[in-house]
Amino acid sequence: MASNASCLFCKIVKREIPAKVLFETEHCLAFLDVGPLSDGHTLVIPKYHAQFLHELPDAEMKDLLPTAKRVAEALGSQNYNILQNNGRLAHQAVDHVHFHVIPKPSEQEGLVMEWKVKETVPDKLESIRKSLLKL
Amino acid sequence: MASNASCLFCKIVKREIPAKVLFETEHCLAFLDVGPLSDGHTLVIPKYHAQFLHELPDAEMKDLLPTAKRVAEALGSQNYNILQNNGRLAHQAVDHVHFHVIPKPSEQEGLVMEWKVKETVPDKLESIRKSLLKL
Ligand SMILES: [Zn+2]
Ligand SMILES: [Zn+2]
Ligand SMILES: [Zn+2]
Ligand SMILES: [Zn+2]
Repeated sequence: MASNASCLFCKIVKREIPAKVLFETEHCLAFLDVGPLSDGHTLVIPKYHAQFLHELPDAEMKDLLPTAKRVAEALGSQNYNILQNNGRLAHQAVDHVHFHVIPKPSEQEGLVMEWKVKETVPDKLESIRKSLLKL
Repeated sequence: MASNASCLFCKIVKREIPAKVLFETEHCLAFLDVGPLSDGHTLVIPKYHAQFLHELPDAEMKDLLPTAKRVAEALGSQNYNILQNNGRLAHQAVDHVHFHVIPKPSEQEGLVMEWKVKETVPDKLESIRKSLLKL
């Protein structure tokens, strides 16, 4: 089990720091965010320490979405966002993979996003597809 | 396999509508978003039709994060957001569960969020925890 002695979330996993835990499974832990965007804002984290999603072994991922679903069921709301940020530029504040489950009770509460769609065309998408697949 | 004849994403799964597919697994499909927030913006969807994450059977979830990780690896960026919206208020536009993998190349491109943290205290978090767990 990868763990990092100076990581806040690893300390929560080891119960060295208290947290308001909702659920625990073999591979993950769900607890209330202390800096919530709305009431009930919860974090679901793998116990395994990885900074980015692309560094997390597949086997360590498997409880995450079923647990996020249990959180959503507990919240009892139809409106919520699941968000996982990678990198400072993308708003990652703690360097241990975490999924935010954020209730969206109103326009102003919860996750507030701008959704600025770029214009694109099929030809451009096809060239992006080829470059991503190294074709 | 739950499918919905009028659902855009079910039609993509059945290849009745074309899409720029990156990856396909037993339970999921990854393809470029036609309304991207940044170049490489990809959707990862379960093949199973469910409107909300809390309606998706656990068994249908298991390929989603490993596939999102493959997309992130293909993007080759340290900065990206994974986002799954549930409900109109939470910005869900297509009523079939989908995970956005959104590269974040700069402040203005990709997912732009406000992060308005609510003030809270341990007592309030504890009462929220109890109410969510029906304690
Ligand atoms: Zn950690
Ligand atoms: Zn965070
Ligand atoms: Zn569908
Ligand atoms: Zn969407």
